[in-house]
Amino acid sequence: MGRQKVLLDKIARALQIRNKLLRQGLAELLGTLILVMFGCGAVAQLVLSEGSHGIFLAVNLAFGFAATLGILVCGQVSGGHLNPAVTFALCLLGRAKWRKFLVYFLCQTLGSFFGAGIIFGMYYDAIQVYHKKEGKLPFGIFATYPGEHLSTANGFFDQVIGTAALIVCILAIVDPYNNPVPQGLEAFTVGFTVLVIGLSMGFNSGYAVNPARDLGPRLFTSMAGWGGQVFSMGNYWFLVPIFAPFLGTIIGVILYQLMVGWHTEGEARDKKKETEELNVKLNDIDSN
Amino acid sequence: MGRQKVLLDKIARALQIRNKLLRQGLAELLGTLILVMFGCGAVAQLVLSEGSHGIFLAVNLAFGFAATLGILVCGQVSGGHLNPAVTFALCLLGRAKWRKFLVYFLCQTLGSFFGAGIIFGMYYDAIQVYHKKEGKLPFGIFATYPGEHLSTANGFFDQVIGTAALIVCILAIVDPYNNPVPQGLEAFTVGFTVLVIGLSMGFNSGYAVNPARDLGPRLFTSMAGWGGQVFSMGNYWFLVPIFAPFLGTIIGVILYQLMVGWHTEGEARDKKKETEELNVKLNDIDSN
Amino acid sequence: MGRQKVLLDKIARALQIRNKLLRQGLAELLGTLILVMFGCGAVAQLVLSEGSHGIFLAVNLAFGFAATLGILVCGQVSGGHLNPAVTFALCLLGRAKWRKFLVYFLCQTLGSFFGAGIIFGMYYDAIQVYHKKEGKLPFGIFATYPGEHLSTANGFFDQVIGTAALIVCILAIVDPYNNPVPQGLEAFTVGFTVLVIGLSMGFNSGYAVNPARDLGPRLFTSMAGWGGQVFSMGNYWFLVPIFAPFLGTIIGVILYQLMVGWHTEGEARDKKKETEELNVKLNDIDSN
Amino acid sequence: MGRQKVLLDKIARALQIRNKLLRQGLAELLGTLILVMFGCGAVAQLVLSEGSHGIFLAVNLAFGFAATLGILVCGQVSGGHLNPAVTFALCLLGRAKWRKFLVYFLCQTLGSFFGAGIIFGMYYDAIQVYHKKEGKLPFGIFATYPGEHLSTANGFFDQVIGTAALIVCILAIVDPYNNPVPQGLEAFTVGFTVLVIGLSMGFNSGYAVNPARDLGPRLFTSMAGWGGQVFSMGNYWFLVPIFAPFLGTIIGVILYQLMVGWHTEGEARDKKKETEELNVKLNDIDSN
Repeated sequence: MGRQKVLLDKIARALQIRNKLLRQGLAELLGTLILVMFGCGAVAQLVLSEGSHGIFLAVNLAFGFAATLGILVCGQVSGGHLNPAVTFALCLLGRAKWRKFLVYFLCQTLGSFFGAGIIFGMYYDAIQVYHKKEGKLPFGIFATYPGEHLSTANGFFDQVIGTAALIVCILAIVDPYNNPVPQGLEAFTVGFTVLVIGLSMGFNSGYAVNPARDLGPRLFTSMAGWGGQVFSMGNYWFLVPIFAPFLGTIIGVILYQLMVGWHTEGEARDKKKETEELNVKLNDIDSN
Repeated sequence: MGRQKVLLDKIARALQIRNKLLRQGLAELLGTLILVMFGCGAVAQLVLSEGSHGIFLAVNLAFGFAATLGILVCGQVSGGHLNPAVTFALCLLGRAKWRKFLVYFLCQTLGSFFGAGIIFGMYYDAIQVYHKKEGKLPFGIFATYPGEHLSTANGFFDQVIGTAALIVCILAIVDPYNNPVPQGLEAFTVGFTVLVIGLSMGFNSGYAVNPARDLGPRLFTSMAGWGGQVFSMGNYWFLVPIFAPFLGTIIGVILYQLMVGWHTEGEARDKKKETEELNVKLNDIDSN
Repeated sequence: MGRQKVLLDKIARALQIRNKLLRQGLAELLGTLILVMFGCGAVAQLVLSEGSHGIFLAVNLAFGFAATLGILVCGQVSGGHLNPAVTFALCLLGRAKWRKFLVYFLCQTLGSFFGAGIIFGMYYDAIQVYHKKEGKLPFGIFATYPGEHLSTANGFFDQVIGTAALIVCILAIVDPYNNPVPQGLEAFTVGFTVLVIGLSMGFNSGYAVNPARDLGPRLFTSMAGWGGQVFSMGNYWFLVPIFAPFLGTIIGVILYQLMVGWHTEGEARDKKKETEELNVKLNDIDSN
Repeated sequence: MGRQKVLLDKIARALQIRNKLLRQGLAELLGTLILVMFGCGAVAQLVLSEGSHGIFLAVNLAFGFAATLGILVCGQVSGGHLNPAVTFALCLLGRAKWRKFLVYFLCQTLGSFFGAGIIFGMYYDAIQVYHKKEGKLPFGIFATYPGEHLSTANGFFDQVIGTAALIVCILAIVDPYNNPVPQGLEAFTVGFTVLVIGLSMGFNSGYAVNPARDLGPRLFTSMAGWGGQVFSMGNYWFLVPIFAPFLGTIIGVILYQLMVGWHTEGEARDKKKETEELNVKLNDIDSN
């Protein structure tokens, strides 16, 4: 085993990346790949098996726990955002640098792209059979499209609300002045949040609430031969899950901070100030 | 980023609320909003998709984990009751002031009202389509109504029992002399309690077991144009989920305290007393 | 609030029970009541709604998490067995006194009896409607009966195996030399065990794997007017879930101890012995 | 109770095994037995009840939490691999000795064999009824077979990807430089990983992703009278879940190490080196 250890050590040293932002980007890429691979995989299983091996609840569970696993894989390195809306929220609150936003957005979209590619390959035969049998491509596996009942205005509102709900919950989970979850269980709690959003906000257009999760797979299917219709369908729907989530993020950040965040933060500041004033007084007494 | 930090700090200071009860009320409002938004959202998804995107189990999971998320968002500030029956139980046991009961009840009902409003807006198109297609309004999405098989007496008993079960479990989870759950996991355990109640006690009338969760959305739908029938239907059923839960709370409190609570509390008191007596004796010996 | 506190304190002192075994029995009664109330409630919801409000998976989830909640409510006082087979296993291993077995068995059966009674009352109207409509009583809600395909010999083996599987998992969870679960999460892990048994061993006869859970509700329905047929049906099936689980317990105890338990226990003993011998040697050196 | 304690102690001492690898093998055997007993049990329940007592989601939940329980039972002794691919991954990374690989593979296959045997016995009557009624044996209960739509090449890719996904997640969970899960919750996290793989990668051929889990039950059914067709069916499919997972393991190990592992490991090494250099400098200063 000695030789193996030496070899492994050599490989590890040769391939180590020291640039922090690059490492974080790679980790986000892998995390988002896992999210989309498992999430879109579950949609594929439901659609392609025509219900025998899936149910919408199973898709919700898969996206929820896929988020958990994605965060667990990359969280220690990159924070485990997996979603440009989450990065955007942390930038808005001054907890992440704006520079990070672009790098993360790119890496999350790339991870999402590759995650879709894996599922495309894994279910290649089944997609062919579905296409022949149903006479249409299973578009809904990879990107979101609006339901027949949905106007674009209602769809935009849907994505704004869904993302706002996600951001309120995530801010509560990671709020440094209101940490309600034991260390290490944040990933599970975010997973339950994604699960609940899927259970309650999935009927209109499939709850993207994540620009990267939607754009990456859409790009992949377009390049894999499904063409420009993945962009034009639903009255150019693809723009909605890219832009609406950022508006939702702003609303979610304001709502959480207004109702809870600024008060707990202020309370902590007040307490710190009191302690400092007390110390000053005590010092005054001491020095007299 | 310097300027952003300064700006954020200014906003935070300007909007900080220092009145504790007001902050608690706001937090309860947000928590209950989350509970009802996700919970009623899941019912909407089941009803409006006519089963393709939902199943009763998914509604149960959504209400359960929505309770978890609601508690996580507001728990550190307000205790995360989300339900006047829970506040009532803690008042009965002398663990919360009666003044809190009215403020919390009001805020919980308001949060519930707004949560229903969000879902009403989010599924606006789908509700229109359902109304046209089915020729009736989807009342059951927002408030509870008795099943066809249910007499009012049985329905009242149903709500009493459901709430008593909820209160017994919650008292065990938060009992200071019997704390069975690791710090920080109470919210999850309450979520599982709500889930199990939905799995086993949901068929009669949809397990409101919470006056605010039922009244808020009912008020909203009444004001949103569904009229007075939301109150008169089911032989003025709306009174049952307002009053029965409080009777259930009393029964739950007595049952838990009688079977477990008073004995563990007494045991702690006995131990404390013994220690004190021993200390007195030791002091006597010392002073001799 | 002063007067309320004084009153509550008086009540608490007046109703405090100091006999430990009695307190433990009461706690087991309440815990098993919760298990059966939620568990049989979920079967009732599935059967009486004719599938609209239930699915077998929901019954499995309900029994699993009902076990978790039952254990949480009574665990600190009585250990949270909820099942005579579990008490029997701990007695076999010398971790509980045999005297406890009879008291616990009685209290678990009583709790089970009352839990069934609550569900009987809660779904009284629905049971009447079912009886009229289907022309038969919904026996399967309360006690277990063999499936049509099942011979008594296969059914006996089913109960032996199911209980052995339960006991192996529970012994691993509570093994003092192999404690794999963080403090306070044992109740959840037992809940998952019950869930998995229901998912995989529920088709033959409904996975009683617990003499008290089966006997209590059966007695209740017999006394509530469903008569002696609850005992005679299925070729006197009721005897199987009373006796087979104890044989399963013996097999489970031997299997776990043989494969894991005795070796980890022995390892701990060996280490302790080594330390002692080392101390003796050191003392010898010291005293020379 | 004195005599019982003495007897138990005698038995424990007589049956204690001191050879570590043998104890580990026995523990793996029991853990894998639990995994396959519950997992294949859930498939049996779904297939034999023809859907009344099961759904594919229930199978996914059963395999996931069965993995959790299997790991909990044996994890402290053997590490809880339950899968030769996991042992292989740890050997590749130099964290386990290659000698272990063969012993674990054998014991895991044996445990899997016996787990299948228990389910075969438990559902003996139901299998007979199914065989008569459907005119075919329920092969899919025990081992995996390719779906009708699946080519062998796609099936091989399916098993490679599924195992790679499993290994990436498991490596993140147990990475000593990136431990994201609280101590004692690894088993649950692995369970969720297996659940998610089932939810998203189960349609092609039933997600074996484990050579032992597939080979053991296949051998059992062959020996129990189902003959050589369990090997020849699906164009000798049985070879795929034996060999593809090891290729998937290699890919998973490289992917995780390349994207996350080697960088966090390297960071830890860099920090350690810095500390050492600092210490050397400080010593130099001291000695001057």
